[in-house]
Amino acid sequence: MLTFVGLGLYDERSVTVEGRDAIAAADRAFAEFYTSYLVGADVDDLEDHHDTTIDVRDRAGVEQDPEPILSAAEDGDAVFLTAGDTMISTTHVDLRLRAEERGIDTRVVHAPTAESAASSLTGLQNYRFGKATTLPFEWAHGADGVPDSVVETLEANRERGLHTLVYLDIKVDHPRIAGDAYMTASEAAGLLADNWDPDALGVVVARAGAPDATVRADRLGALADADFGDPLHLLVIPGDLHHVERDALAGLADAPEDAL
Amino acid sequence: MLTFVGLGLYDERSVTVEGRDAIAAADRAFAEFYTSYLVGADVDDLEDHHDTTIDVRDRAGVEQDPEPILSAAEDGDAVFLTAGDTMISTTHVDLRLRAEERGIDTRVVHAPTAESAASSLTGLQNYRFGKATTLPFEWAHGADGVPDSVVETLEANRERGLHTLVYLDIKVDHPRIAGDAYMTASEAAGLLADNWDPDALGVVVARAGAPDATVRADRLGALADADFGDPLHLLVIPGDLHHVERDALAGLADAPEDAL
Repeated sequence: MLTFVGLGLYDERSVTVEGRDAIAAADRAFAEFYTSYLVGADVDDLEDHHDTTIDVRDRAGVEQDPEPILSAAEDGDAVFLTAGDTMISTTHVDLRLRAEERGIDTRVVHAPTAESAASSLTGLQNYRFGKATTLPFEWAHGADGVPDSVVETLEANRERGLHTLVYLDIKVDHPRIAGDAYMTASEAAGLLADNWDPDALGVVVARAGAPDATVRADRLGALADADFGDPLHLLVIPGDLHHVERDALAGLADAPEDAL
Repeated sequence: MLTFVGLGLYDERSVTVEGRDAIAAADRAFAEFYTSYLVGADVDDLEDHHDTTIDVRDRAGVEQDPEPILSAAEDGDAVFLTAGDTMISTTHVDLRLRAEERGIDTRVVHAPTAESAASSLTGLQNYRFGKATTLPFEWAHGADGVPDSVVETLEANRERGLHTLVYLDIKVDHPRIAGDAYMTASEAAGLLADNWDPDALGVVVARAGAPDATVRADRLGALADADFGDPLHLLVIPGDLHHVERDALAGLADAPEDAL
């Protein structure tokens, strides 16, 4: 049996009780942190908390060499741990399909996601979000500014009055940089202010799920000059605002009256 | 302090470890189950598991008479429990804003949502979903068939190649019916087959988060004739399919080859 367990958004206590029990019951535990990671816990913290040994796989160790995971799941109970909910990335879906093809039973234990936290923390209603998009580092997408596809998504949602969740680029173990890189919300707001609309309202969600989670709404131009502390950050570009959403941005995200 | 704790999708073990700890540390626990509920646990199960007493409030007891909740949060630590993630409904945002206005600190403990589970279980990628919609009972929206707004959302997403998550109507304590009513995915597929497109591909997600969670993809006309068991159900109408998504619907949702 291969159980995919989402670890949630922040630390070793962000997993569900069901997920914790699945980890405790497993013979082997694997994890990947290249699609996302926990800000408040490293692998040692997780191993201590769950009293287990975790085999962390890099992208190649999941996509090109999944054999150790699959054979552990064939011979006994294995868990595969990811930050946030699980199966959000194609890399997880692909692993699940390979397991199913080999006749290995699979199970999913859900966890909170950045996407639902963004809605939850800002008071912006989840059914009023359109398609999400990801803003890449300029050096990563190989051109200056903001890709057309990002602007198209923002414009198409705006036209329909919908909010846009903008995921910010994460580069882990990238050959072109030393260390890992996480785009900040101010960088993102600056890119969008310079290449799209500096007066558009933006809502920063910093460290969703952490005890010091921060939400701040202002014009993109103003957000670009602010500092929201440690990663991970998200940016939401609101569409039309329902009156409770407006109250929430004023009351919970310090939105200036004249920006709403 | 008022802490909003999401209980997750299925039973008393669907809450995060952080949420469980917040419930244990609270002086008073309140809950509402009119926006959603846990299929696998009733209030007694929750009270036993968390060794606490839970004061369940109906809609009027949250929206018109929040005083007992607010004063408990003013005098000590109170938790407010909801199924799924919390703050998803305006009723929760409104309560949080009232608390903040009274100078009561608030905190949010996230939990899995049906929305992310739908993406997770079907293998459909979360960033390829457009705006979600809710399909109401015919008797509840006061006209035959499917509201124009639902069809407009489906069409607008389809035009952009995006998936649509269709929430199915829930009526709890409704004056026009005895007992509670949960629209099934077959009812929903039937309504959409009759009033929109019987050949459109649909993906049923039944009991997301439960041990017997079921995912099934087929044409709406075929899904309308099937039985997916106990609630809660969701329906996804996929847009364009990425090849891993196609493989996932075939491998995990038994989609007939000729429907993909």
